[in-house]
Amino acid sequence: MKVVVVGGVAGGMSAAARLRRLDEAAEIVVLERDDYVSFANCGLPYHIGGDIEDREALLLQTPESLRASLDLDVRRGHEVFELDRTARTVRVRDRLHGEIYTEDYDNLILATGATPLLPPLPGVDNPRIRTLRNIPDMDAIISILDSGVRSAVVVGGGYIGLEMVEALVHRGVDVTLVEASDQVMTALDREMARQLEDHLTSHGVTVLLGRRAQAFADGGAGRIEVDLGDEQVTADLVVLAIGVKPTSELARSAGLAVAQSGAVIVDGQMRTSDPSIFAVGDSVQVTDTVTGEPVVVPLAGPANRQGRVAADAIAGRVGSVYTSTQGTGIVKVFDLTAGMTGVNERTLIRLGRDYRKVHVHPNGHASYYPGTHAMHMKVLFDGSDGRLLGGQVVGVDGVDKRIDVLAVAIRAEMTIEDLEHLELAYAPPYGSAKDPINMAGFVGGNLMRSDVDLWYAEEWPELPAGVVLLDVRSPAEHAEWSIPGSLLIPHKQLRERLDEIPRGATVYTYCRSGFRSYLAQRILVQNGWTDAKTLAGGELTFRAVHPDGSSGWAQYPVVSYAEEELAARRPAHTR
Amino acid sequence: MKVVVVGGVAGGMSAAARLRRLDEAAEIVVLERDDYVSFANCGLPYHIGGDIEDREALLLQTPESLRASLDLDVRRGHEVFELDRTARTVRVRDRLHGEIYTEDYDNLILATGATPLLPPLPGVDNPRIRTLRNIPDMDAIISILDSGVRSAVVVGGGYIGLEMVEALVHRGVDVTLVEASDQVMTALDREMARQLEDHLTSHGVTVLLGRRAQAFADGGAGRIEVDLGDEQVTADLVVLAIGVKPTSELARSAGLAVAQSGAVIVDGQMRTSDPSIFAVGDSVQVTDTVTGEPVVVPLAGPANRQGRVAADAIAGRVGSVYTSTQGTGIVKVFDLTAGMTGVNERTLIRLGRDYRKVHVHPNGHASYYPGTHAMHMKVLFDGSDGRLLGGQVVGVDGVDKRIDVLAVAIRAEMTIEDLEHLELAYAPPYGSAKDPINMAGFVGGNLMRSDVDLWYAEEWPELPAGVVLLDVRSPAEHAEWSIPGSLLIPHKQLRERLDEIPRGATVYTYCRSGFRSYLAQRILVQNGWTDAKTLAGGELTFRAVHPDGSSGWAQYPVVSYAEEELAARRPAHTR
Repeated sequence: MKVVVVGGVAGGMSAAARLRRLDEAAEIVVLERDDYVSFANCGLPYHIGGDIEDREALLLQTPESLRASLDLDVRRGHEVFELDRTARTVRVRDRLHGEIYTEDYDNLILATGATPLLPPLPGVDNPRIRTLRNIPDMDAIISILDSGVRSAVVVGGGYIGLEMVEALVHRGVDVTLVEASDQVMTALDREMARQLEDHLTSHGVTVLLGRRAQAFADGGAGRIEVDLGDEQVTADLVVLAIGVKPTSELARSAGLAVAQSGAVIVDGQMRTSDPSIFAVGDSVQVTDTVTGEPVVVPLAGPANRQGRVAADAIAGRVGSVYTSTQGTGIVKVFDLTAGMTGVNERTLIRLGRDYRKVHVHPNGHASYYPGTHAMHMKVLFDGSDGRLLGGQVVGVDGVDKRIDVLAVAIRAEMTIEDLEHLELAYAPPYGSAKDPINMAGFVGGNLMRSDVDLWYAEEWPELPAGVVLLDVRSPAEHAEWSIPGSLLIPHKQLRERLDEIPRGATVYTYCRSGFRSYLAQRILVQNGWTDAKTLAGGELTFRAVHPDGSSGWAQYPVVSYAEEELAARRPAHTR
Repeated sequence: MKVVVVGGVAGGMSAAARLRRLDEAAEIVVLERDDYVSFANCGLPYHIGGDIEDREALLLQTPESLRASLDLDVRRGHEVFELDRTARTVRVRDRLHGEIYTEDYDNLILATGATPLLPPLPGVDNPRIRTLRNIPDMDAIISILDSGVRSAVVVGGGYIGLEMVEALVHRGVDVTLVEASDQVMTALDREMARQLEDHLTSHGVTVLLGRRAQAFADGGAGRIEVDLGDEQVTADLVVLAIGVKPTSELARSAGLAVAQSGAVIVDGQMRTSDPSIFAVGDSVQVTDTVTGEPVVVPLAGPANRQGRVAADAIAGRVGSVYTSTQGTGIVKVFDLTAGMTGVNERTLIRLGRDYRKVHVHPNGHASYYPGTHAMHMKVLFDGSDGRLLGGQVVGVDGVDKRIDVLAVAIRAEMTIEDLEHLELAYAPPYGSAKDPINMAGFVGGNLMRSDVDLWYAEEWPELPAGVVLLDVRSPAEHAEWSIPGSLLIPHKQLRERLDEIPRGATVYTYCRSGFRSYLAQRILVQNGWTDAKTLAGGELTFRAVHPDGSSGWAQYPVVSYAEEELAARRPAHTR
């Protein structure tokens, strides 16, 4: 059996390596268009920023090491430009030697990845406008930086864009982030992304949301003028990180089934519409774990596992199936971590799903043990059966852990009430006896059982007529910030001061994070105010939903991550 | 309705608080024998060691704050010494005023906790021999430390014992740890605990395993001589942390059903054999999630959740059930973290269960991103259907996350093969495209599908006659350490040197962690050596199983956690 793999990074190389382990006799040829195989593409921004000092650390394998270890025939600089499905051959261009040859196959694996989107804008071909996808891209950016860069514009606030912003700031560059949407990290919901935008600003980054680069012009002295329509930003370097599209020209031109998105259509064994051709990684369409919809999710983890599944299929392991992708992702933005898994609220609204949501703000670990901060956690679940649909967490410590717990719970088709009962590891340095995950479960479980009724920050300012807005925080907290028109009764005084609240009124309670107002709501409901509700996520979520202060309250942030404490937490190499 | 809660810390206070939220009208009396309620008992060692500077941080609530917030009648220093189930009354001693009174109840919640075991040894009543369970215990230890302590003996290597060892070392005390078992942390298996013992030793702790304190004598100058039988250790302070027993005298004397372990028997709603009496926390017997056996698991998380369930039951929330405890636990030992969930191998052997196991040693996050180390991960699963039975992890970074993922997977009744497909959060600072959890799944899945066959370090030195022990590491690794009698063929040379291995021989391969030897095994099996096996966990696990070097190999540790790098990772407050 001869298997040709087109593309030698994550998905392709996983497939080739797995196939060799399953079949010592197979002839396996890996054709990689570029000059590097099996490199650490997720590490590129961190070498630019200096966290990863040694460039060699990113080069995990060479054709020689892969030959010796796995008997793979890996050819760099060999580009497949034609696929003849009838003859079962590919046409290959050896870029180094300028030769063209034909390679036949019994099975073909397309791991052609994705290509950075390059908007067709005037001046986009300026050599100081770069994208970041591979080692040469990285080298080019470093070379420009080394030539002296004081300012940069990063276009696009997704994973790569945010990681590049941080890398450039680490290099001492003055960075402007331009994002066409009204938020960074669109996998997050709007109010969750807010934490990141604020944190970027606190690190000196100029964040321009809802702005689109419209043209690039020569700004003089090797600089680039980025035209945003109403203003121009001049910089020494522009990094375009507006997303990627599946690299599927080969599949399409050979007549394989390709979705409108440009992604190759595959079955559970990663087989394309041609049974001898498989496709894996960033170029394929997968099924969304939660919605069942077809989606394109260019992430390294899925690519690696898809490669294994394709190899299993070729080796006759029929039980191996890639079922779905749930979009579990995570990004480091200076001292913050933001993660998500499953679907976000925007998607649920688009799909018209019956859903409910909770916002909680627990600390990463026991508050009395040093080094922890309140996180923002949002969990979405089915409105009728409570099944988990999505989770988002932004915070300083313990974020990745809670995202992984939610990721497993979603995969296991657990409900919000199941989160109440999860038995997670607790000691003061690691968590709380009631873990943040349990807390989300408690709130959501109470909601499902109607022990709590929530009102949401989005309702503001269109509240029901006659509603009593009840602030149950302390007088000091009230004096610092409150929702206009609030009545202040600290929750500990509520039982004695119930007569200050009109009988029969609808009461919207709120506090800082949602716990004290829940206590207040329970008191009210049981004393005759049957239409009392608790502000979901409290002040912390409210101010993230309404950040601009235009209605009279202070600017975000509410949570001030004390800089000196954060600095002490950083590993030495990033300080 | 009047509810009396006996015990005002984790389980009892959770029950009281939850009940108030559900029932504003209930009369709720909390009777706490000691002088503190709702304190952070898990934080006690960390205040002794100085990580938590402020003693007040441990005192989460007072009777006054609980009255104001939750309208609870909390009475400190009130000890319940008699329970009359027919009259539905308890007899209470007010220790401060020396008064005795009767309190009636409609429902009673027993949250009497557990009592440190105190061995009936000669001299154990020495005031410098202490246990640690509550605030006065902590204050007493600190008082002794402040009076000048240069050396201490900690008896017992469980959670409290290990946390106390670290706390005392932080205080500059010379510590000897005495443990009767042949390992610390008996929730771990022997080879996993080894990492902790070695790490303790590297921090200057004298670790004496398989040794039992037999008597305590006056060592002169306020010192204590601890008699271990064959030797005596003299110290300024002795901390006894040999475990706890359920505090169930009240339940027992009132005729409630109590197990032989001393734990109170309850149903899924935490109801005792008397339908108006509930019991929660460290004093109750629960069902083991994995084995279904009755067990006693004194942990804070379960106690808190049991308290909620009891309150739910009293308030008529019949759907709320406490199903089981899986023993998820975690402990910090200087720079190491050790966690476990589900059952360990010892338990599976005792039960005669058909099980299989994998050992893997992945890094906490991408190896090319700084600040990560190889961890020791062991996963146990059912030998026929692959269902997860238990997990243990010891390492530096990312340990708690993997334990929580395994904890959820066990709760969800996932199999080892399900771990292959989990989609966990990946970016270089947080994990790997193939997460450690996926890696354990890959190895275990291969084992279930017979794509790998493992041999185990425990088989040594009684290997099958005629077996070829094949070291596939590098010559340099081989020179440094090898299993006696090994044939060295680096895995990259194996295909060319197959003729050096006798045809038809049984071949036991090994490498450092188990991956290269797996590659070698796959080559061998497909070239006619059908009885080739891979050493599970490689050298790293082998040397943990056989640490003493008595057979000619070097002392543990293999993984040297570079001290300067670890130091850089520590939060500033612990440096």
